[in-house]
Amino acid sequence: MQTGLRSKLLDAFSKAEGEYLSGQKISEYLGCSRTAVWKHIEELRKEGYELDAVRRIGYRITKKPDKISSNEIQLGLTTSFMGRHIHFEEEVTSTQKIAHNLASEGAEEGTIVVSEQQSSGRGRLSRVWYSPKHTGIWMSLILRPQIPLSQTPQLTLLAAVAIVQAIEEVTTLKPDIKWPNDILVNGKKLVGILTELQAEADRVHSVIIGMGINVNHDQDHFPTDLQDIATSIAIEAGEKADRAELIQQILLKFEVLYNLYLSKGFKPIKLLWESYAISLNKTVVARTLHGSLTGKAIGINEDGVLLLETESGNIEKIYSADIEVKS
Amino acid sequence: MQTGLRSKLLDAFSKAEGEYLSGQKISEYLGCSRTAVWKHIEELRKEGYELDAVRRIGYRITKKPDKISSNEIQLGLTTSFMGRHIHFEEEVTSTQKIAHNLASEGAEEGTIVVSEQQSSGRGRLSRVWYSPKHTGIWMSLILRPQIPLSQTPQLTLLAAVAIVQAIEEVTTLKPDIKWPNDILVNGKKLVGILTELQAEADRVHSVIIGMGINVNHDQDHFPTDLQDIATSIAIEAGEKADRAELIQQILLKFEVLYNLYLSKGFKPIKLLWESYAISLNKTVVARTLHGSLTGKAIGINEDGVLLLETESGNIEKIYSADIEVKS
Repeated sequence: MQTGLRSKLLDAFSKAEGEYLSGQKISEYLGCSRTAVWKHIEELRKEGYELDAVRRIGYRITKKPDKISSNEIQLGLTTSFMGRHIHFEEEVTSTQKIAHNLASEGAEEGTIVVSEQQSSGRGRLSRVWYSPKHTGIWMSLILRPQIPLSQTPQLTLLAAVAIVQAIEEVTTLKPDIKWPNDILVNGKKLVGILTELQAEADRVHSVIIGMGINVNHDQDHFPTDLQDIATSIAIEAGEKADRAELIQQILLKFEVLYNLYLSKGFKPIKLLWESYAISLNKTVVARTLHGSLTGKAIGINEDGVLLLETESGNIEKIYSADIEVKS
Repeated sequence: MQTGLRSKLLDAFSKAEGEYLSGQKISEYLGCSRTAVWKHIEELRKEGYELDAVRRIGYRITKKPDKISSNEIQLGLTTSFMGRHIHFEEEVTSTQKIAHNLASEGAEEGTIVVSEQQSSGRGRLSRVWYSPKHTGIWMSLILRPQIPLSQTPQLTLLAAVAIVQAIEEVTTLKPDIKWPNDILVNGKKLVGILTELQAEADRVHSVIIGMGINVNHDQDHFPTDLQDIATSIAIEAGEKADRAELIQQILLKFEVLYNLYLSKGFKPIKLLWESYAISLNKTVVARTLHGSLTGKAIGINEDGVLLLETESGNIEKIYSADIEVKS
């Protein structure tokens, strides 16, 4: 099937919201014969869709395949601009890298890059992010906010809130956020966020937010050295999640929060973030480029910077660090 | 001649500092015959070098060709890391673009990208920078400072000071700096600086400083719409300048200032910058993305942000704007 037609057909099913669509209606909508409609339906089945077909009534989609593609993300997406341009590739080096290139070439705000597999997925500080096939969400989102450079860390926190809200919507889990960019369940890492930017000294061109989400990994999927520190939604919730639906929810929550952020500033995001933050009011060790610092994490400031109260009572600002929660 | 041998030969002449080098010494240094040395010398002459050859004494370079290449920049360069890796291409789309790619691939601090011509040279805010062949310096410099994102504008100011000092060293001109990134002579634009960065939200990966310097343009070289606002060293000083020498001086001044900046912070750079700044204590109009503001430019703060005193006596911080100096 041509990509355009398939996309149109899925769009029609999406708009029908689970109701049956008659073969006649579909043939008119696509501008093709009833026989051609039947062939298109068969092709969707081959791709892993399950469809009810009721004589004289029509068709409806009952189950989408457990894979991600532009179609699966598009089908049922209710955002106005987030994820409206989807760049999907079955396998990539890293979605961040592709998103950087697209951003340089002028990609619109809300454009996403999604892949089923990354051969060199990256985390913060050029660390490796393990990204095996068909199990996770490896996605990069392009934003073009007119904000000072110093405010970009706020978008990492906003992204964390959006992802936690989406996970809560789609699963039974209640994840925690660990400053600045990790989402944990039972103390193990479920999600990592990498915020990068392209900018002039006084002007942000684009912010590229990468998300790595462990969704349907079995325990065995993780390499030995990650098994004690990483987990997945499937492991923690006891059942697999629909990755396309989770992406849609992330895009939706992100759009709502981002619009709020652009109109009201960081304050409402900060309050939400704090309600999910695991490290607050606990003793933490902050490992920075310039050494380690132990203290009580008393909050974040208006820029998203972590505030640490040391034993001597000083309040230290932590701009960039790895955080270990002690108690 | 192989690039490696030519580069070694030029390096030998550079180290001789204008003294004669005997054919024997050169043949030992290059590991080739006296006849081969003679051929190499002839090839240098074909490339535009002028050499004195004195029987039984040897050779010395008396004049370098009026073109830029890795060799011309390398010959006589006295920096320790600035410009020690030179990426030269005769024609490019934009040196910034190439520098971004090199930086992504891990290019070392101090790497420069230089070209004789840019087909799509860029200035601030994606404006076009006119970059015709064999007349200017179109160069991008890769830095990797460990500074907060908010301090990157300081490097634009540092670059401006380095370029002014270099121009004063090589020519008779006394240029002025107009905040944030222009260098003027007699009120016309001689130099533009474009500072861009690649960064994570809490960490600078690289700062890429692009410089467009109008050196040997005649008045006729400029398009009509630029003739009233742009100028060149040749027009203002009445004689052409050696572009390779100017690049060497820029790299040298930059290295000194950058080392000072990394060890002592922005304060000493700020004092130097203020001594060259044309807009200070004058009434200026600042055109920002959010509208225009008129006031007296009373200085810059520790971050390099322009401070404007409005009629009502308020001090406004200008992070990003085009500045017009009124009086």
